[in-house]
Amino acid sequence: MNWQIAPLDRTIEADIQARIDQKTKPLGALGQLEQLALQIALVQQKNRISIERPLMLVFAGDHGIAEEGVSIAPSSVTQQMVLNFLAGGAAINCFCRTNHLPLKVIDAGIKYEINPAPTALIVQRIAAGTRNLAVEPAMTIAQAEQALRLGATLAEQEIVAGSNLLAFGEMGIANSSSAAAILAALSGAPVTQCVGKGTGINDEQLAKKIALVSQGVARITDQSPLNILAELGGFEIAQICGAMLATAQAQKLILVDGFIVSVAALLAVHISPHARDYMIFAHKSEEAGHQLLLQLLNANPLLDLGLRLGEGTGAALALPLIQAATSFYNQMATFESAGVTV
Amino acid sequence: MNWQIAPLDRTIEADIQARIDQKTKPLGALGQLEQLALQIALVQQKNRISIERPLMLVFAGDHGIAEEGVSIAPSSVTQQMVLNFLAGGAAINCFCRTNHLPLKVIDAGIKYEINPAPTALIVQRIAAGTRNLAVEPAMTIAQAEQALRLGATLAEQEIVAGSNLLAFGEMGIANSSSAAAILAALSGAPVTQCVGKGTGINDEQLAKKIALVSQGVARITDQSPLNILAELGGFEIAQICGAMLATAQAQKLILVDGFIVSVAALLAVHISPHARDYMIFAHKSEEAGHQLLLQLLNANPLLDLGLRLGEGTGAALALPLIQAATSFYNQMATFESAGVTV
Repeated sequence: MNWQIAPLDRTIEADIQARIDQKTKPLGALGQLEQLALQIALVQQKNRISIERPLMLVFAGDHGIAEEGVSIAPSSVTQQMVLNFLAGGAAINCFCRTNHLPLKVIDAGIKYEINPAPTALIVQRIAAGTRNLAVEPAMTIAQAEQALRLGATLAEQEIVAGSNLLAFGEMGIANSSSAAAILAALSGAPVTQCVGKGTGINDEQLAKKIALVSQGVARITDQSPLNILAELGGFEIAQICGAMLATAQAQKLILVDGFIVSVAALLAVHISPHARDYMIFAHKSEEAGHQLLLQLLNANPLLDLGLRLGEGTGAALALPLIQAATSFYNQMATFESAGVTV
Repeated sequence: MNWQIAPLDRTIEADIQARIDQKTKPLGALGQLEQLALQIALVQQKNRISIERPLMLVFAGDHGIAEEGVSIAPSSVTQQMVLNFLAGGAAINCFCRTNHLPLKVIDAGIKYEINPAPTALIVQRIAAGTRNLAVEPAMTIAQAEQALRLGATLAEQEIVAGSNLLAFGEMGIANSSSAAAILAALSGAPVTQCVGKGTGINDEQLAKKIALVSQGVARITDQSPLNILAELGGFEIAQICGAMLATAQAQKLILVDGFIVSVAALLAVHISPHARDYMIFAHKSEEAGHQLLLQLLNANPLLDLGLRLGEGTGAALALPLIQAATSFYNQMATFESAGVTV
């Protein structure tokens, strides 16, 4: 695919900064929220910024490497958690409800198909899980391209429907293995720095996970992002990556969750570097590789709550901070309008 | 006054923790939000926890020490900002609106009275600002007691009206000098560790601020919290402290903002140690002394956004995280109820 992602037009940056500096507060006193308002204003190129029809998209997929026992749970739990999302009982459902963020769930290729599919489930399955990345390519190049395209099309539809911010979450047993492998392959960093305990494996499982991920990464000769994605997989990671690229292409905001979603973001930035301009990073995950990932993406996330759940939970929790940034930018009085004589 | 503040009843703690651990997520995966849910459940001693009629109380007061030029702005700005709060144009107004948090503004003793007082302003003035703490007691013991009582009565009224969480904010030119002095006197820490640049003074002003605060602190012989409060002042700090004590006495939640409000919290804990059990700390401020203060209070705040504005802005921004904690505690499915077989 040929992505046409424009860099931010910074010609109005000084005007935006001046507007922020005239608000009734000491210079810079709103810290990160000021940088966030600046970014949103640059993306939207408008005097009044807004978050319209924000939407959480949770992509689920299964991973062949799960059969090696690198996770605390078997692949069947991916399906069970998708059903939990659809029933409204997971953490992401709670946080989306609290913050009035609608949620859609996508089957990007879970192992155990839900049949018949509930109408609320968006079904765009590539296959019944990827192959085992430790021993063979997780998917074909054609599957990777298809997954990027399906993710992109979904994002485009939601943007046409009125969303100007898409938040991304994921579910997939063993997807932290896939994400760590992609991170190692894209960055060249040691696998040990990229692999973490996921949702809570023991030291023995961790050693095995490192060995298997290393095996997969060692197979890579073609360093193109598309090849790395196909080799090391993740249908949900691929669809998220495609959706992010389409969102950036439409010049809308991308809200990035934790480790897995940040790997999709890194892939997107490798495919089209200006995609980074449209990304807001929600939180710093407890997962080992996330710190490195955030450095590579030059990202300073909004929250640091010790979360290590995924699902998009960090992104859902960060939404009110983004709304607060738009609110102060639009509504706060200036020294002049308020008659404050500092 | 005689405060009767009960420690948390921890007999149900194991049950609460078990309930959290049965939710469909890896153990501990919601990080700080799990500790928060536990605290709220201990305070409320209920199976379903809730935040009811949350309310932001912003107390304003002026400080005699302002005449020394220890701030970026003159005392008249306190009045101007109170008018800005009442007109809805300040940062705290924006964040309260975003997060559906009603806001009340209290004149605890600003220098320039607003006359006639708008009906929305709660007037409980002790005097037209404190005296200069660098050279004399900021207020009398009787004034300190009156301020504590007025704060307490207001909190009691709001709790009777249905609030089970009170958030606190403040406005008062030079109140970071008063707060730093109280922190130094209560903790015995060097004044240099307690004094910061407030909303943005230069190095010369900072040196002067340190000298003047040291002068005030050096005067203290009677180390009782009430005497320290009277000597080093802050009508708004005193009223917040009284309101916090009343809130803890009623076993309701206290949402603590940044440096100034945390000093009021430290005073409250010195007056009645179990008050700490009811406090939630919203954010880590950029103000120099806040780190020490958080250590003394054994507090791990929810947000770290580089804010240094005051007004209650950090507390208003943290409210959705508290609501998210109650939401997952009440609504999230268990492994059993969701049929998840981990």
